Amino acid sequence: MAIVLMVLAGGLAALGTCNAAEAEKKIPAEDEKAIRQIVDTLESAWNALDAKTTASVFSDDAEFINVVGMQWRGKAAIEKAHAVYFELLFKNCKLHTDEVTIRPLGPEHAIATWVCTQDTFTTPSGSVVPKHQNRLTLVVVKGAKDGWKIVQGQNTRIDAEAARFDPVK
Amino acid sequence: MAIVLMVLAGGLAALGTCNAAEAEKKIPAEDEKAIRQIVDTLESAWNALDAKTTASVFSDDAEFINVVGMQWRGKAAIEKAHAVYFELLFKNCKLHTDEVTIRPLGPEHAIATWVCTQDTFTTPSGSVVPKHQNRLTLVVVKGAKDGWKIVQGQNTRIDAEAARFDPVK
Repeated sequence: MAIVLMVLAGGLAALGTCNAAEAEKKIPAEDEKAIRQIVDTLESAWNALDAKTTASVFSDDAEFINVVGMQWRGKAAIEKAHAVYFELLFKNCKLHTDEVTIRPLGPEHAIATWVCTQDTFTTPSGSVVPKHQNRLTLVVVKGAKDGWKIVQGQNTRIDAEAARFDPVK
Repeated sequence: MAIVLMVLAGGLAALGTCNAAEAEKKIPAEDEKAIRQIVDTLESAWNALDAKTTASVFSDDAEFINVVGMQWRGKAAIEKAHAVYFELLFKNCKLHTDEVTIRPLGPEHAIATWVCTQDTFTTPSGSVVPKHQNRLTLVVVKGAKDGWKIVQGQNTRIDAEAARFDPVK
Protein backbone atom coordinates (compact mmCIF):
# COMPACT_ATOMS: atom_id res chain seq x y z
CA MET A 1 0.00 0.00 0.00
CA ALA A 2 3.02 2.25 -0.06
CA ILE A 3 2.85 4.98 -2.62
CA VAL A 4 5.45 4.62 -5.28
CA LEU A 5 5.73 7.62 -7.53
CA MET A 6 8.12 6.76 -10.28
CA VAL A 7 9.78 9.83 -11.62
CA LEU A 8 11.57 8.81 -14.78
CA ALA A 9 13.74 10.93 -17.02
CA GLY A 10 11.62 13.72 -18.44
CA GLY A 11 8.88 13.17 -15.91
CA LEU A 12 10.12 15.58 -13.26
CA ALA A 13 7.79 18.33 -14.46
CA ALA A 14 4.87 16.30 -13.16
CA LEU A 15 6.09 16.89 -9.61
CA GLY A 16 4.95 20.49 -9.89
CA THR A 17 1.33 19.33 -9.76
CA CYS A 18 1.84 16.93 -6.86
CA ASN A 19 1.17 18.75 -3.63
CA ALA A 20 1.12 16.23 -0.81
CA ALA A 21 -0.49 18.59 1.70
CA GLU A 22 -3.33 19.33 -0.71
CA ALA A 23 -3.78 15.66 -1.57
CA GLU A 24 -4.24 14.82 2.08
CA LYS A 25 -7.12 17.22 2.46
CA LYS A 26 -9.16 15.88 -0.43
CA ILE A 27 -10.57 12.49 -1.11
CA PRO A 28 -11.72 11.29 -4.52
CA ALA A 29 -15.48 10.77 -4.72
CA GLU A 30 -15.08 7.06 -5.45
CA ASP A 31 -12.94 6.58 -2.33
CA GLU A 32 -15.40 8.50 -0.17
CA LYS A 33 -18.22 6.38 -1.57
CA ALA A 34 -16.34 3.17 -0.79
CA ILE A 35 -15.62 4.25 2.79
CA ARG A 36 -19.23 5.32 3.37
CA GLN A 37 -20.28 1.93 2.01
CA ILE A 38 -18.21 0.27 4.74
CA VAL A 39 -20.20 2.10 7.41
CA ASP A 40 -23.49 1.32 5.63
CA THR A 41 -22.48 -2.34 5.63
CA LEU A 42 -21.67 -2.28 9.34
CA GLU A 43 -25.08 -0.74 10.06
CA SER A 44 -27.10 -3.13 7.88
CA ALA A 45 -25.14 -6.21 8.99
CA TRP A 46 -25.70 -5.28 12.64
CA ASN A 47 -29.42 -4.96 12.06
CA ALA A 48 -29.45 -8.31 10.21
CA LEU A 49 -27.41 -9.96 13.04
CA ASP A 50 -24.91 -10.94 10.33
CA ALA A 51 -21.42 -11.39 11.82
CA LYS A 52 -19.86 -12.65 8.60
CA THR A 53 -20.84 -9.54 6.66
CA THR A 54 -19.76 -7.38 9.61
CA ALA A 55 -16.30 -8.96 9.48
CA SER A 56 -16.12 -8.65 5.68
CA VAL A 57 -15.34 -4.93 5.86
CA PHE A 58 -12.25 -5.55 8.02
CA SER A 59 -8.78 -6.52 6.79
CA ASP A 60 -7.51 -9.97 7.77
CA ASP A 61 -5.22 -8.44 10.40
CA ALA A 62 -7.67 -5.81 11.63
CA GLU A 63 -8.08 -5.06 15.31
CA PHE A 64 -11.21 -3.87 17.06
CA ILE A 65 -11.61 -2.39 20.53
CA ASN A 66 -15.22 -2.70 21.59
CA VAL A 67 -17.27 -0.39 23.78
CA VAL A 68 -16.12 -2.06 27.01
CA GLY A 69 -12.47 -2.13 26.00
CA MET A 70 -12.08 -5.71 24.78
CA GLN A 71 -9.53 -6.01 21.97
CA TRP A 72 -10.21 -8.48 19.17
CA ARG A 73 -7.28 -9.23 16.86
CA GLY A 74 -7.94 -10.41 13.31
CA LYS A 75 -11.01 -10.68 11.09
CA ALA A 76 -11.87 -14.17 12.39
CA ALA A 77 -11.93 -12.97 16.00
CA ILE A 78 -14.05 -9.95 15.03
CA GLU A 79 -16.54 -12.26 13.30
CA LYS A 80 -16.66 -14.69 16.23
CA ALA A 81 -17.19 -11.97 18.82
CA HIS A 82 -19.98 -10.35 16.83
CA ALA A 83 -21.67 -13.71 16.25
CA VAL A 84 -21.70 -14.38 20.00
CA TYR A 85 -22.94 -10.93 20.95
CA PHE A 86 -25.56 -10.74 18.20
CA GLU A 87 -27.03 -13.94 19.66
CA LEU A 88 -26.53 -13.05 23.33
CA LEU A 89 -27.27 -9.35 23.52
CA PHE A 90 -28.47 -7.69 20.35
CA LYS A 91 -31.34 -9.72 18.87
CA ASN A 92 -33.74 -6.87 19.48
CA CYS A 93 -31.27 -4.02 19.48
CA LYS A 94 -31.24 -2.04 16.27
CA LEU A 95 -28.65 0.53 15.39
CA HIS A 96 -28.80 3.53 13.08
CA THR A 97 -26.24 5.94 11.74
CA ASP A 98 -26.42 9.55 12.88
CA GLU A 99 -23.23 10.93 11.32
CA VAL A 100 -20.20 9.80 9.33
CA THR A 101 -17.22 12.07 8.77
CA ILE A 102 -14.22 11.10 6.71
CA ARG A 103 -10.74 12.55 7.09
CA PRO A 104 -8.16 11.48 4.51
CA LEU A 105 -4.57 10.93 5.66
CA GLY A 106 -3.18 10.54 2.15
CA PRO A 107 -4.40 8.60 -0.89
CA GLU A 108 -4.45 5.20 0.81
CA HIS A 109 -5.27 5.98 4.44
CA ALA A 110 -8.27 7.66 6.02
CA ILE A 111 -10.22 7.88 9.24
CA ALA A 112 -13.99 7.58 9.35
CA THR A 113 -15.67 8.76 12.52
CA TRP A 114 -19.07 7.19 12.96
CA VAL A 115 -21.77 8.28 15.41
CA CYS A 116 -24.69 5.88 15.75
CA THR A 117 -27.68 5.38 18.01
CA GLN A 118 -28.17 1.95 19.55
CA ASP A 119 -31.43 0.69 21.04
CA THR A 120 -31.70 -0.40 24.64
CA PHE A 121 -30.47 -3.87 25.53
CA THR A 122 -29.96 -6.05 28.61
CA THR A 123 -26.58 -7.49 29.59
CA PRO A 124 -26.20 -11.14 30.69
CA SER A 125 -25.99 -9.94 34.30
CA GLY A 126 -29.38 -8.23 33.94
CA SER A 127 -28.28 -4.60 33.63
CA VAL A 128 -30.41 -2.57 31.25
CA VAL A 129 -28.40 -0.29 28.95
CA PRO A 130 -30.75 2.45 27.77
CA LYS A 131 -30.86 3.72 24.19
CA HIS A 132 -27.71 5.74 23.64
CA GLN A 133 -25.17 6.94 21.10
CA ASN A 134 -21.74 5.48 20.34
CA ARG A 135 -18.81 7.17 18.62
CA LEU A 136 -16.34 5.05 16.65
CA THR A 137 -12.99 5.63 15.02
CA LEU A 138 -12.53 3.45 11.93
CA VAL A 139 -9.05 3.55 10.40
CA VAL A 140 -9.36 2.49 6.76
CA VAL A 141 -6.65 1.56 4.27
CA LYS A 142 -6.94 1.09 0.52
CA GLY A 143 -5.49 -2.26 -0.45
CA ALA A 144 -4.25 -3.01 -3.96
CA LYS A 145 -6.39 -6.14 -4.20
CA ASP A 146 -9.54 -5.65 -2.17
CA GLY A 147 -10.05 -1.90 -1.90
CA TRP A 148 -10.81 -0.05 1.32
CA LYS A 149 -10.91 -2.09 4.53
CA ILE A 150 -10.97 -1.24 8.22
CA VAL A 151 -7.60 -1.99 9.84
CA GLN A 152 -8.47 -0.67 13.29
CA GLY A 153 -11.76 0.20 14.93
CA GLN A 154 -12.64 1.47 18.36
CA ASN A 155 -15.98 2.17 19.98
CA THR A 156 -16.80 4.45 22.91
CA ARG A 157 -20.25 5.01 24.38
CA ILE A 158 -21.27 8.67 24.46
CA ASP A 159 -22.19 9.72 28.00
CA ALA A 160 -24.95 12.25 27.41
CA GLU A 161 -24.73 13.57 30.98
CA ALA A 162 -20.97 14.13 30.74
CA ALA A 163 -21.42 15.79 27.34
CA ARG A 164 -23.21 18.68 29.06
CA PHE A 165 -19.88 19.57 30.66
CA ASP A 166 -17.68 19.27 27.56
CA PRO A 167 -15.09 22.02 28.17
CA VAL A 168 -14.65 22.67 24.48
CA LYS A 169 -18.26 23.19 23.44
CA MET B 1 3.34 13.18 4.17
CA ALA B 2 2.95 11.27 0.91
CA ILE B 3 5.80 8.99 0.05
CA VAL B 4 7.71 10.13 -2.96
CA LEU B 5 10.17 7.55 -4.21
CA MET B 6 12.11 9.10 -7.02
CA VAL B 7 13.35 6.50 -9.37
CA LEU B 8 15.78 8.21 -11.66
CA ALA B 9 17.61 6.73 -14.62
CA GLY B 10 19.78 3.91 -13.38
CA GLY B 11 17.90 3.65 -10.10
CA LEU B 12 15.28 1.15 -11.17
CA ALA B 13 17.22 -1.76 -9.69
CA ALA B 14 16.44 -0.43 -6.24
CA LEU B 15 12.77 -1.29 -6.78
CA GLY B 16 13.64 -4.95 -6.40
CA THR B 17 14.18 -4.41 -2.69
CA CYS B 18 10.99 -2.40 -2.17
CA ASN B 19 8.26 -4.79 -1.12
CA ALA B 20 5.28 -2.79 0.11
CA ALA B 21 3.70 -5.70 1.97
CA GLU B 22 6.93 -6.40 3.84
CA ALA B 23 7.49 -2.74 4.57
CA GLU B 24 4.09 -2.55 6.25
CA LYS B 25 4.96 -5.29 8.71
CA LYS B 26 8.21 -3.78 9.91
CA ILE B 27 8.98 -0.48 11.49
CA PRO B 28 12.43 1.08 11.66
CA ALA B 29 13.82 1.24 15.20
CA GLU B 30 14.00 5.03 15.11
CA ASP B 31 10.32 5.28 14.17
CA GLU B 32 9.29 2.85 16.87
CA LYS B 33 11.33 4.84 19.37
CA ALA B 34 9.65 8.09 18.30
CA ILE B 35 6.17 6.59 18.60
CA ARG B 36 6.91 5.09 22.03
CA GLN B 37 8.20 8.52 23.05
CA ILE B 38 4.79 9.97 22.21
CA VAL B 39 3.12 7.60 24.66
CA ASP B 40 5.79 8.28 27.29
CA THR B 41 5.10 12.00 26.85
CA LEU B 42 1.35 11.48 27.25
CA GLU B 43 1.96 9.55 30.46
CA SER B 44 4.42 11.98 32.02
CA ALA B 45 2.43 15.06 30.94
CA TRP B 46 -0.71 13.58 32.50
CA ASN B 47 1.10 12.98 35.76
CA ALA B 48 2.49 16.52 35.67
CA LEU B 49 -0.99 17.96 34.88
CA ASP B 50 0.62 19.57 31.82
CA ALA B 51 -1.97 20.14 29.08
CA LYS B 52 0.41 22.00 26.77
CA THR B 53 2.86 19.11 26.65
CA THR B 54 -0.04 16.67 26.26
CA ALA B 55 -1.21 18.60 23.19
CA SER B 56 2.32 18.85 21.79
CA VAL B 57 2.28 15.23 20.58
CA PHE B 58 -0.84 15.85 18.46
CA SER B 59 -0.93 17.31 14.95
CA ASP B 60 -2.62 20.70 14.54
CA ASP B 61 -5.68 19.06 13.00
CA ALA B 62 -5.77 16.04 15.33
CA GLU B 63 -9.01 14.77 16.77
CA PHE B 64 -9.50 13.02 20.10
CA ILE B 65 -12.48 11.04 21.34
CA ASN B 66 -12.32 10.82 25.11
CA VAL B 67 -13.46 8.05 27.40
CA VAL B 68 -17.03 9.34 27.59
CA GLY B 69 -17.32 9.92 23.84
CA MET B 70 -16.63 13.65 23.59
CA GLN B 71 -14.88 14.61 20.36
CA TRP B 72 -12.26 17.35 20.45
CA ARG B 73 -11.14 18.71 17.09
CA GLY B 74 -7.72 20.31 16.76
CA LYS B 75 -4.66 20.59 18.97
CA ALA B 76 -5.94 23.77 20.67
CA ALA B 77 -9.18 22.06 21.70
CA ILE B 78 -7.27 19.01 22.96
CA GLU B 79 -5.08 21.27 25.09
CA LYS B 80 -8.02 23.25 26.47
CA ALA B 81 -10.00 20.14 27.38
CA HIS B 82 -7.05 18.55 29.15
CA ALA B 83 -6.29 21.77 31.02
CA VAL B 84 -9.86 21.90 32.33
CA TYR B 85 -10.01 18.24 33.31
CA PHE B 86 -6.54 18.18 34.88
CA GLU B 87 -7.75 20.98 37.17
CA LEU B 88 -11.26 19.64 37.74
CA LEU B 89 -10.81 15.88 37.96
CA PHE B 90 -7.28 14.59 37.86
CA LYS B 91 -5.18 16.53 40.39
CA ASN B 92 -4.66 13.38 42.43
CA CYS B 93 -5.18 10.82 39.70
CA LYS B 94 -1.97 9.31 38.39
CA LEU B 95 -1.74 7.16 35.32
CA HIS B 96 0.79 4.54 34.32
CA THR B 97 1.44 2.59 31.14
CA ASP B 98 0.79 -1.14 31.16
CA GLU B 99 1.34 -1.96 27.49
CA VAL B 100 2.11 -0.26 24.19
CA THR B 101 1.86 -2.13 20.88
CA ILE B 102 2.70 -0.57 17.55
CA ARG B 103 1.36 -1.71 14.21
CA PRO B 104 2.82 -0.02 11.12
CA LEU B 105 0.49 0.72 8.21
CA GLY B 106 3.30 1.74 5.85
CA PRO B 107 6.36 3.94 6.32
CA GLU B 108 4.44 7.04 7.37
CA HIS B 109 1.37 5.69 9.16
CA ALA B 110 1.06 3.52 12.25
CA ILE B 111 -1.30 2.65 15.05
CA ALA B 112 -0.20 2.57 18.66
CA THR B 113 -2.50 0.77 21.07
CA TRP B 114 -1.95 1.91 24.62
CA VAL B 115 -3.25 0.24 27.77
CA CYS B 116 -2.85 2.25 30.96
CA THR B 117 -4.04 2.13 34.54
CA GLN B 118 -5.66 5.22 35.98
CA ASP B 119 -6.12 5.93 39.68
CA THR B 120 -9.51 6.47 41.22
CA PHE B 121 -11.11 9.90 40.83
CA THR B 122 -14.38 11.65 41.62
CA THR B 123 -16.55 13.26 38.95
CA PRO B 124 -18.08 16.74 39.45
CA SER B 125 -21.42 15.06 40.20
CA GLY B 126 -19.81 13.09 43.03
CA SER B 127 -19.50 9.68 41.40
CA VAL B 128 -16.36 7.81 42.38
CA VAL B 129 -14.64 6.10 39.46
CA PRO B 130 -12.47 3.31 40.91
CA LYS B 131 -8.95 2.57 39.71
CA HIS B 132 -9.27 0.98 36.28
CA GLN B 133 -7.59 0.40 32.94
CA ASN B 134 -8.17 2.29 29.69
CA ARG B 135 -7.35 1.17 26.17
CA LEU B 136 -6.53 3.78 23.53
CA THR B 137 -6.04 3.78 19.78
CA LEU B 138 -3.51 6.41 18.70
CA VAL B 139 -3.20 6.87 14.93
CA VAL B 140 0.21 8.39 14.23
CA VAL B 141 1.55 9.93 11.02
CA LYS B 142 5.12 10.89 10.19
CA GLY B 143 5.24 14.47 8.98
CA ALA B 144 8.02 15.82 6.84
CA LYS B 145 8.65 18.73 9.20
CA ASP B 146 7.83 17.65 12.71
CA GLY B 147 8.11 13.86 12.76
CA TRP B 148 5.52 11.51 14.24
CA LYS B 149 2.34 13.06 15.62
CA ILE B 150 -1.01 11.70 16.71
CA VAL B 151 -3.72 12.55 14.16
CA GLN B 152 -6.54 10.67 15.88
CA GLY B 153 -6.91 9.26 19.35
CA GLN B 154 -9.71 7.44 21.09
CA ASN B 155 -10.06 6.18 24.64
CA THR B 156 -12.32 3.44 26.01
CA ARG B 157 -12.50 2.34 29.62
CA ILE B 158 -11.86 -1.39 30.10
CA ASP B 159 -14.78 -3.00 31.91
CA ALA B 160 -13.06 -5.70 33.98
CA GLU B 161 -16.35 -7.48 34.71
CA ALA B 162 -17.31 -7.61 31.02
CA ALA B 163 -13.81 -8.82 30.15
CA ARG B 164 -14.55 -12.08 31.96
CA PHE B 165 -17.05 -12.83 29.21
CA ASP B 166 -14.91 -11.91 26.21
CA PRO B 167 -16.06 -14.44 23.59
CA VAL B 168 -12.68 -14.51 21.90
CA LYS B 169 -10.49 -15.25 24.89
